[in-house]
Amino acid sequence: MSSNVVGVDMGGTKTLAAVVDADGNILSTAKIQTQAKSKTSVVIDRIAACIREAIDAAPVDTNSIEAIGIGAPGPLDPNTGIVIFAPNLGWKNVPLKTELETRVDIPTYVDNDVNVGTLGEHTFGAGRSVKDLVGIFVGTGIGGGIILNGKLYHGASKTAGEIGHIIVKAGGPKCGCGNRGCLEALASRTAMTKEFKKAIQKKGKKSILSNLTGGDLGLIRSGVLAKALHSNDKLTRKVFKNTTKYLGIGIGSIVNFLNPEMIVLGGGVVEAVGDKFIDDIRKAANKYALPDTLKDVEIVAAQLGDNAGVLGAAALARQRLKSG
Amino acid sequence: MSSNVVGVDMGGTKTLAAVVDADGNILSTAKIQTQAKSKTSVVIDRIAACIREAIDAAPVDTNSIEAIGIGAPGPLDPNTGIVIFAPNLGWKNVPLKTELETRVDIPTYVDNDVNVGTLGEHTFGAGRSVKDLVGIFVGTGIGGGIILNGKLYHGASKTAGEIGHIIVKAGGPKCGCGNRGCLEALASRTAMTKEFKKAIQKKGKKSILSNLTGGDLGLIRSGVLAKALHSNDKLTRKVFKNTTKYLGIGIGSIVNFLNPEMIVLGGGVVEAVGDKFIDDIRKAANKYALPDTLKDVEIVAAQLGDNAGVLGAAALARQRLKSG
Repeated sequence: MSSNVVGVDMGGTKTLAAVVDADGNILSTAKIQTQAKSKTSVVIDRIAACIREAIDAAPVDTNSIEAIGIGAPGPLDPNTGIVIFAPNLGWKNVPLKTELETRVDIPTYVDNDVNVGTLGEHTFGAGRSVKDLVGIFVGTGIGGGIILNGKLYHGASKTAGEIGHIIVKAGGPKCGCGNRGCLEALASRTAMTKEFKKAIQKKGKKSILSNLTGGDLGLIRSGVLAKALHSNDKLTRKVFKNTTKYLGIGIGSIVNFLNPEMIVLGGGVVEAVGDKFIDDIRKAANKYALPDTLKDVEIVAAQLGDNAGVLGAAALARQRLKSG
Repeated sequence: MSSNVVGVDMGGTKTLAAVVDADGNILSTAKIQTQAKSKTSVVIDRIAACIREAIDAAPVDTNSIEAIGIGAPGPLDPNTGIVIFAPNLGWKNVPLKTELETRVDIPTYVDNDVNVGTLGEHTFGAGRSVKDLVGIFVGTGIGGGIILNGKLYHGASKTAGEIGHIIVKAGGPKCGCGNRGCLEALASRTAMTKEFKKAIQKKGKKSILSNLTGGDLGLIRSGVLAKALHSNDKLTRKVFKNTTKYLGIGIGSIVNFLNPEMIVLGGGVVEAVGDKFIDDIRKAANKYALPDTLKDVEIVAAQLGDNAGVLGAAALARQRLKSG
């Protein structure tokens, strides 16, 4: 009998489930609105129903489903499967693993969504050939995950991989975490938006972004940024140059400290802007990494795109099922 | 028959060898001046003689010596045992492992001196209870090593653990590596000496260091720094406050990124100044690490002192002998 798993990508807005075979082929999918404002038990009921829908739609025997993996937001304990805190769900100490196992009766494994995305790239995406890699995802914030010897590395507090909170500029701009000069405060889309607001609204600089957002710079999304950059907008080019520099510094530090075989770059901003951005980041990192080290450390684009969540969760299910 | 190894601590000035039993007891020692200016083959002859002297002096059967471990300076390949570049020895691509094995006829394993010091702390010192730790050694420069799952982690270029070259202040002071704002450029003894020179010689500040060094600030060593600090010298206190802050930032970044179980602090400056310095660094790191993470990450003083080199090399010999 074939061996299949369900991968679940749980977000604040929507949740996707997919039945995935051993080779990473998606056999069926289902999708719901998470409706995060509902009672926790109702949200979990809905996720369970979404999982069952994906299983029913798959052209496989239900008994072939050996495990469920789920990538969830927020700090969580991957051993107990308890989501410790997820502000966009309003969750605190929710035992997601056991609540789902009660409803679906299939072994369920939970991990942080960014870790799951990194594991997905390792198992089915850009990092298939390596044992040690770091995933960096640049979007609203900057998240990351670490794979060592083929497995997710969680660290003592289960918070390893918080690449956005590497401090690259002591005394630099304030970060959401309360510190100053974190990578996230200098190179995330949020940091870029602040730069745009300062330049356009305070300094009166001109930019195509004013038109593209209808004047509301709060509407800057990754696609809009890519459009402005590809239109050769001067201000956008300048802000990207800065972002690239700081990503290069952060990656340089990671290369000097951990020296992994590969760094996989993904997330909304990276995906929207494309390969040129990766090339520029690689060049910037080469300035900050110790001489001759970057030839051993590949810096590549993530490959899984929208499927990263469900494929990563499927990889998690399979790996945890094996290791117990 | 008992199982013993020889640990060798090779430096630019002197080289120590010790026969060490399975429990980390030093059974005998020998010491030579390295005489780094001699021909490479002569230097290696002398090291081999030093090893034989330690073996002859040990109250054990020569056949009980199963392996030799050696911590050597400079970037090197731990697999081949070739020292790639060691400026203070004038060495380039010296096959230290095979040259020693030819002379002594005992399996020999080579690693970087800082890695070896970190492994020593893990096996016989402060880190005996943990699986994942980072060693940070603050002296002329800032070196480091990483132990993951009980073993030295070398990374793709064999340069993992270059903690001194984490960038903590983009655009900060120039580092010996050519970059700006590396931890080493802000918190090593070299960085502190520059601060003292600037304050005393350029700004005319008063400090007990002028007396302690007979006016030659180039003579600032760790012991002198400790004396000035314990004399409550105002300038020294100020410079240490800065050093502590940057070490806190570097450690905060490591905690946020790798989240190891333990960080072991050693090296000349840390050893000379003592526990109060560790306490201050821990407090500084707590400002920069994500909330609630430092409770899981111990920050402790190295325990092996002058024996770190030979004990670490002994640990290396034993671990590599086992893993092949």
